[in-house]
Amino acid sequence: MPDATRYFDLPSPFAMKRGGALIGARLAYETWGTLNAARDNAVFILTGLSPGAHAASSPADPTPGWWEDMLGPGKYIDTDRWFVICANTLGSCKGSTGPASIDPATGKVYRLSFPDLTLEDVANASHELVRHLGIERLACLIGNSMGGMSALGYLVQHPGSVRAHISISTAPQAQPFAIAIRSLQREAIRLDPNWNQGNYDDEHYPEAGMSIARKLGVITYRSAMEWVGRFARIRLDHDQRERDPFGAEFAVESYLSGHARRFVRNFDPNCYLYLSRASDWFDIAEYGGGDVGTGLRRIRIERALVIGVTTDILFPLSQQQEIADGLRAAGAEVDFVPLDSPQGHDSFLVDIPRFGAAIARFLGTL
Amino acid sequence: MPDATRYFDLPSPFAMKRGGALIGARLAYETWGTLNAARDNAVFILTGLSPGAHAASSPADPTPGWWEDMLGPGKYIDTDRWFVICANTLGSCKGSTGPASIDPATGKVYRLSFPDLTLEDVANASHELVRHLGIERLACLIGNSMGGMSALGYLVQHPGSVRAHISISTAPQAQPFAIAIRSLQREAIRLDPNWNQGNYDDEHYPEAGMSIARKLGVITYRSAMEWVGRFARIRLDHDQRERDPFGAEFAVESYLSGHARRFVRNFDPNCYLYLSRASDWFDIAEYGGGDVGTGLRRIRIERALVIGVTTDILFPLSQQQEIADGLRAAGAEVDFVPLDSPQGHDSFLVDIPRFGAAIARFLGTL
Repeated sequence: MPDATRYFDLPSPFAMKRGGALIGARLAYETWGTLNAARDNAVFILTGLSPGAHAASSPADPTPGWWEDMLGPGKYIDTDRWFVICANTLGSCKGSTGPASIDPATGKVYRLSFPDLTLEDVANASHELVRHLGIERLACLIGNSMGGMSALGYLVQHPGSVRAHISISTAPQAQPFAIAIRSLQREAIRLDPNWNQGNYDDEHYPEAGMSIARKLGVITYRSAMEWVGRFARIRLDHDQRERDPFGAEFAVESYLSGHARRFVRNFDPNCYLYLSRASDWFDIAEYGGGDVGTGLRRIRIERALVIGVTTDILFPLSQQQEIADGLRAAGAEVDFVPLDSPQGHDSFLVDIPRFGAAIARFLGTL
Repeated sequence: MPDATRYFDLPSPFAMKRGGALIGARLAYETWGTLNAARDNAVFILTGLSPGAHAASSPADPTPGWWEDMLGPGKYIDTDRWFVICANTLGSCKGSTGPASIDPATGKVYRLSFPDLTLEDVANASHELVRHLGIERLACLIGNSMGGMSALGYLVQHPGSVRAHISISTAPQAQPFAIAIRSLQREAIRLDPNWNQGNYDDEHYPEAGMSIARKLGVITYRSAMEWVGRFARIRLDHDQRERDPFGAEFAVESYLSGHARRFVRNFDPNCYLYLSRASDWFDIAEYGGGDVGTGLRRIRIERALVIGVTTDILFPLSQQQEIADGLRAAGAEVDFVPLDSPQGHDSFLVDIPRFGAAIARFLGTL
């Protein structure tokens, strides 16, 4: 299997924000392009909850990545110019250390003994990787969704380490609607008897809980407006329907099932719980005496591009406006780009022409 | 226990739209005010998914009803003038016949042997009750939420039976976002091992599934905007938190739990599944050769008030606009009232001043 993954051993012990430390932890990452002699062309991407480090194909791994059309030679994030790094998030399960990894102290999988995870820990681990690669200052730090919160955590904790920032469909803190959705996703997993307080295995696996969690995710990642055009009230053919009297009958139900099927066994449930909770916890106001604006004003960067989408119900546009205002008040030159993409929160993954144009324009001015 | 409930025995057999018939079925209902000699002051209320017939208190039952502040002597729906009727929906579990009732043919609870339920059946049963009460023509038919769809089913099937209509926060057909939400609610119940294909009892009851379904309901019944002001990121006191590492920590989580707790054992899971599926099925376009506007144009009424709320994500305002346009094209005189209530879909239950004013104004012109 082609694989461009590299591994970085985090300093050990690696202290965690809420207590505890990781021993022998590592990050999986990939890079594209070449770091120049001045070491000033590095772009780091902090991801949403579920993607791994494989953002795009490369000679070493030609399989398409999760941001394939955004990133590569001659693309919007042009790897002929930029040295791009993407890591699998600390606490995830796609090569980086997380609750599904072996705890070297016991030789067993961490599961719920993994220390409390915060997005500041995610940020700090990423920062260690950047320094390890010999980069004093990133040309640009990009954060999508949960990764956008991690990016704010990076910026506020490591002043001077980033020149420009691209903040995409994210928030300075979780609002109660997003907390409610994520809490319910976690509850669906926890209430699945097969979750068993985190002690599942392949045979007894919280499939039902993960399926509900994923479907709820997909519902809130897209938009009602998109679906009216895409699914309307299209029925499944009779031979596609389940026999169950309450089984899927509409195309939109089958779409959700497809998403769930592809996710349920490909993401570790405990990792999901840890990362989901970390998203609820993140709050830039912690750095501003309880005030979001004051927290954002502590960030020192030269330039920022803040992008949001009018149809995003999970990270509403008003929160991107808040980030833009805060970074501007902090002294950065800020471009705020509200987009009309119909695909909701996920637009940055699918409406590549709109997002790509804004990102390429911004990167072109750096 | 005070009780103003009355019961109406439906014609038996009572034929159901998708096949089958109910034997010895009944509707629970309550009335307020007095039917005048001309029998032309009757107002019928078709409810949302979960309320019973007890819309408001009365001398016979002074406990507050689910629309207590809307309805009563001197209130917005003034029972000094109007003879108001509210029935528990056919297929529900609050006195009317539904999947939780005894099937007289077997002496056992129907459960999933209850015939397929549609909102047209709900409408037809209500129409039988109205005729039984000696009312040829309703002065006004009011439908909220799911009840608004039932009302369209009533109007399209029984031309000439209604003079004016109040349509509240409803839709001419379920859109894919609403279908997705309801499908996921049903799935949460069905995946609960205690649901057991509908064969639960008090001891083995699908509590987890019902809790998830209700919480997801509450999330989509309210609005993100309301919650920012109401809950923000308020934390529970430490002694209110669950010990579970992923247990409730934020006030919004505790709010959802309270809602779930009050609902889970007070609504029958099979009834929930039947009514939820009926909501997905309803489509006025069936009466218009596949077109919503054409379906609505078949409705013959004199006047209509159509109310929607800008923050409603389950029944978006565009769908109320569609109803208003369709009824107007059908020849009715239509008032379309979009409201800025912050409480989302549930606004008609809580923002009584705004809704009440619009309703009272409309009723005053009849």
